[in-house]
Amino acid sequence: MKKIIKDRGAVYFNEGSWATLSNILENLCPSKVFVLTDTNTKTHCLELFLKNVPFNIVPEVLTISAGERHKTISTSVALWSELSEKGADRRSLLINLGGGVVTDLGGFVASSFKRGIEFINIPTSLLAMVDASIGGKNGVDLGILKNQIGVIRNPKCVIIDSTFLETLPEEQVISGYAEILKHGLIHSESYWNAASRFDIKNKVETDALIWGSVEIKNEVITEDPNEHGRRKTLNYGHTLGHAIESYLLEHSNKEALLHGEAIAIGMILATYISSEENAFPKSKLEIVTQTILRSFPKVTFSDIDIAAIIKLLIYDKKNDNGKVHFVLLSDFGSHTMNNEISNSTIKKAFEYYKNF
Amino acid sequence: MKKIIKDRGAVYFNEGSWATLSNILENLCPSKVFVLTDTNTKTHCLELFLKNVPFNIVPEVLTISAGERHKTISTSVALWSELSEKGADRRSLLINLGGGVVTDLGGFVASSFKRGIEFINIPTSLLAMVDASIGGKNGVDLGILKNQIGVIRNPKCVIIDSTFLETLPEEQVISGYAEILKHGLIHSESYWNAASRFDIKNKVETDALIWGSVEIKNEVITEDPNEHGRRKTLNYGHTLGHAIESYLLEHSNKEALLHGEAIAIGMILATYISSEENAFPKSKLEIVTQTILRSFPKVTFSDIDIAAIIKLLIYDKKNDNGKVHFVLLSDFGSHTMNNEISNSTIKKAFEYYKNF
Repeated sequence: MKKIIKDRGAVYFNEGSWATLSNILENLCPSKVFVLTDTNTKTHCLELFLKNVPFNIVPEVLTISAGERHKTISTSVALWSELSEKGADRRSLLINLGGGVVTDLGGFVASSFKRGIEFINIPTSLLAMVDASIGGKNGVDLGILKNQIGVIRNPKCVIIDSTFLETLPEEQVISGYAEILKHGLIHSESYWNAASRFDIKNKVETDALIWGSVEIKNEVITEDPNEHGRRKTLNYGHTLGHAIESYLLEHSNKEALLHGEAIAIGMILATYISSEENAFPKSKLEIVTQTILRSFPKVTFSDIDIAAIIKLLIYDKKNDNGKVHFVLLSDFGSHTMNNEISNSTIKKAFEYYKNF
Repeated sequence: MKKIIKDRGAVYFNEGSWATLSNILENLCPSKVFVLTDTNTKTHCLELFLKNVPFNIVPEVLTISAGERHKTISTSVALWSELSEKGADRRSLLINLGGGVVTDLGGFVASSFKRGIEFINIPTSLLAMVDASIGGKNGVDLGILKNQIGVIRNPKCVIIDSTFLETLPEEQVISGYAEILKHGLIHSESYWNAASRFDIKNKVETDALIWGSVEIKNEVITEDPNEHGRRKTLNYGHTLGHAIESYLLEHSNKEALLHGEAIAIGMILATYISSEENAFPKSKLEIVTQTILRSFPKVTFSDIDIAAIIKLLIYDKKNDNGKVHFVLLSDFGSHTMNNEISNSTIKKAFEYYKNF
């Protein structure tokens, strides 16, 4: 078992982690246990979970519809009501079993139910394993604006069992891969190179990348839990990526992208801008773009799309005083913060992406 | 100026506190300032506030409908949307100018907007001055269940100016007085005696009681911020009081009570139960009941009402594992925690209240 121990939010990985969870449950002695799933994880992951964890009392299973469009306040209200009706009290426990939507939403629901009950994250998607379930950020979308409502509060612990990935459709695996590539970009060229060789069929290497990414994320958030500085690097590619994701989600005539697919585009754009404004080497930009496009679909944006996406940027949580600030790189693992970028530079980045 | 200084949640009282607020605003340098009012405080309190605080940029005023029935998630959603539309970012500040509904709801809205922006409480009702605005508890109701959704997070500071009380209808003043009496019950016979002499026309004594209550509440929550022990005494009378308040709010054919009016009844019931189960002296019970009934209306409850109120108790946040636990007193300032009380004892308490 690999593990990172902290006061709250300890992360346990693979062998031995289920036994550890059983111990934690025994010590915590919750009055009731609720397991939050979505329609997918209820079908594909619940059985494995129940097989691995002994419960004195059968836990209550709560189920939401799968998909980002259900990560809303109204889903939260339905869950708060269900928890109330089923007799949840302050000593109840919520276990979030699912991908990023389940851990983000479940974390918020638990953190604000009766001013906070304990919760545990069991990520079942690659994206949730390497990113969403770690670090205590939780929240829901407000209309098309992503993660506008939420708090920062760590789970009691995080249990990662990479065998859950076998239940995942390929495009969902690839979506999580975007965050591993991001860790390469913000951390080091060596981790980027390791990430470039990602192959889901190679379990040993995939496990190494999952744990590598957990360690990188943990290092960053331990240094800067409240995002005053270095934690902002975890948003690399997300400023434009979120705007792209929101825009496509809002327009039902356009095909929505998975979170990682949108972030992949955002990272190409941010790396282009880094090369223009921050001396990121052009040759490495080439490699980054090639590597990303090898795994992620290329999307066509019209001028109208691009203008609308730029307009959405002002709602980004990382904007400040009406100005949109980007994290940029000068090389793998070397960043500068709070770069103000003009709209024309953003348009040139879309142009570069289109013509690549 | 009287003041209690802490990292967060510092409280400033009367003379000099507006000047202190101006300094705090200058140091904080928020990107935008929003002032949350309700329809009453916008009319009666906003002008005094704006006269006392210089702003470089005119703050945006947000207004909600007055009254407990608007302390909901849907009001929160409307405010989150308005904040987004008006360009609030993470460095924006929300100033809550109002009674307990405004400070409870505004604190929750700020704490969960973009994972937490700064907020300042400026209580304008007696209840908010001595109780709601202090201690970092915030939240909204879920259906008829009071404060089910919320978090604990302190405001940047609390500014109390007791001249706001001159704008308050008498029954609203009396509602806040219930919490001052509660502080007497849980703190000491001497503070109870001082509280018994409350007279809103005597400004000097009223100010002394406001500050006395702020100090008592501050002492309790400093010792036990997360309500593992002594903080539970602040719920004295609230277990039944909340259930009574919720029940009457739910039944539109019955006259709703103000929070303090419901808590006043809850305190008589809890003190009767204390005398039955916890040796609270009968002679002092007599005094407590007389004192409370001198200021608060007596309400008639049918057997059906009482049964429904008892049923609501299981949703109380302080219940644990399906059992309702009361804080009881053995004397002024001496409490015991987690007393499990039978329904028949609760019925006898209502009987005592009815026949007094």
